[in-house]
Amino acid sequence: MKIGIIGGGAIGLLLAAYLSDEYEVTVYTRRSLQAQRLMREGLRLVKRGETKCISLQAMPFTKADISDDLVFVTVKQYDVAEIINRQNQFDRAETVVFLQNGMGHVKRLSSLTKKNVIVGTVEHGALKHDDHTVEHTGIGKIVLARLYGAFGQAANLAKKNIPDFPFEIANDWESVLVKKLIVNAVINPLTALLRVKNGELLKVKPYYEMMALLFSELKQVLPMEDEQAAWDHIVNVCEKTADNYSSMFMDISQQRKTEIDAILGYVLEKGKELGVPLPLSQFLFAAIKGMEERGAEHG
Amino acid sequence: MKIGIIGGGAIGLLLAAYLSDEYEVTVYTRRSLQAQRLMREGLRLVKRGETKCISLQAMPFTKADISDDLVFVTVKQYDVAEIINRQNQFDRAETVVFLQNGMGHVKRLSSLTKKNVIVGTVEHGALKHDDHTVEHTGIGKIVLARLYGAFGQAANLAKKNIPDFPFEIANDWESVLVKKLIVNAVINPLTALLRVKNGELLKVKPYYEMMALLFSELKQVLPMEDEQAAWDHIVNVCEKTADNYSSMFMDISQQRKTEIDAILGYVLEKGKELGVPLPLSQFLFAAIKGMEERGAEHG
Repeated sequence: MKIGIIGGGAIGLLLAAYLSDEYEVTVYTRRSLQAQRLMREGLRLVKRGETKCISLQAMPFTKADISDDLVFVTVKQYDVAEIINRQNQFDRAETVVFLQNGMGHVKRLSSLTKKNVIVGTVEHGALKHDDHTVEHTGIGKIVLARLYGAFGQAANLAKKNIPDFPFEIANDWESVLVKKLIVNAVINPLTALLRVKNGELLKVKPYYEMMALLFSELKQVLPMEDEQAAWDHIVNVCEKTADNYSSMFMDISQQRKTEIDAILGYVLEKGKELGVPLPLSQFLFAAIKGMEERGAEHG
Repeated sequence: MKIGIIGGGAIGLLLAAYLSDEYEVTVYTRRSLQAQRLMREGLRLVKRGETKCISLQAMPFTKADISDDLVFVTVKQYDVAEIINRQNQFDRAETVVFLQNGMGHVKRLSSLTKKNVIVGTVEHGALKHDDHTVEHTGIGKIVLARLYGAFGQAANLAKKNIPDFPFEIANDWESVLVKKLIVNAVINPLTALLRVKNGELLKVKPYYEMMALLFSELKQVLPMEDEQAAWDHIVNVCEKTADNYSSMFMDISQQRKTEIDAILGYVLEKGKELGVPLPLSQFLFAAIKGMEERGAEHG
């Protein structure tokens, strides 16, 4: 089976590293320089202090005529629209997997109904060191759920049992995405604003209170079957990634655009729809927007 | 007239610098080293890039038997209780002026009813460079209002018209303190959390929205005669002190205790009294408490 991975960020490179043992993998990057480097020097996976070198195919997405059977889209949510606009480039793929944070991109996927469309969440910790080096900082899993059609070639991945890189199949795509959204809506903005590692939200008592305050607000608009389980999941992610900086923290500190629209922006839309005031989400949303704006100025 | 100033912080030193021309001033410090330095090397006032050297008296407060007619208490709010416990040391003062932020200290002043007790707010910008150097970073005024008794010797100050250092007399102590409290409750925690100068709250649009959100919450519990005037005042202070870091920002960055209890702590008490939920104030209060806690750890 041939696998295409659109996006050469931390998640795209991590997927490429783990899938290359079993499959023929091509990474489709935004910049040609990154593709060149991956082709020439290979992909380096750093794990537990050791580095493994992996050779694979790579090319810039805009020039690609993708013939892979299974395609992963790993770009940030705000770039999904651009990928969908160029869907003729992966017309031959039978199954497409979208691994974005948030929920806002789901409505954009309706033009792909002829394919198997899978959405999923990534619970791994990954840090991109440079264009051809990714570190696996926390071993988790990838959860996949059907949005349109069948699992198709994605079903094979769950059966493969790749060490340190399990795939899990779930039934209800909405509950999969919401579960991740809740985690992202709490941990990401708070760590970015307070400029701390994920674990500090548990260690510093007033920060833990901030998490709880925010969670109480979110549960008014995000569907949770089991509130206690949702809260425990947040705490569990903080524990497991205690020493990591969240992606939003990293985006802010490297003056990149964050995924705040996909995360709290979506929450605020829900609040508007339901007529529920969400002062903390509004406040945090503005804080991150302001930090982005200032970062861009200084950058 | 002899004037005593309890507290050798930025405000205490600024007062000492401006009152020494006309009056015999003694500064009562917490540490003997600061008093020694002030006695030996004098007090230096930096203003518009120029430095003026002023000689005055200084001694540690704990050893002082104060004979001044007029005493200013310029310690932080959380140290007022300790000063009141030692009120026998300034028993001979007829008039005592308290220049703290917040409102919480007012109830502690009831044991001083035999004196003229004045409370006031400082609208100057002041930055303490070292134990005997203070910079006047923003020219404002000091507003005084009677809590118990008469204005006494404090009335003279308002008549004196000291250049760049005016005193204003107001009628209603509560509205004087609330006006300052509103400014402090908005500007201080936001600048400390976002780590920006006061002016950024106006320049960065999402930060301005955060100010507005917080203000809408505060006006539910703080008495404001004219809401628009109160908001305009906040904006005006941000403009006038655009290039300054707030005292709370400075406290956090220098890993000192902040005045968050006196400011948002008081607001939260009011909310409890009135049964009004204040999610943003709670959230910000926890943020600053957490930053204090972490600072202390790392210090």
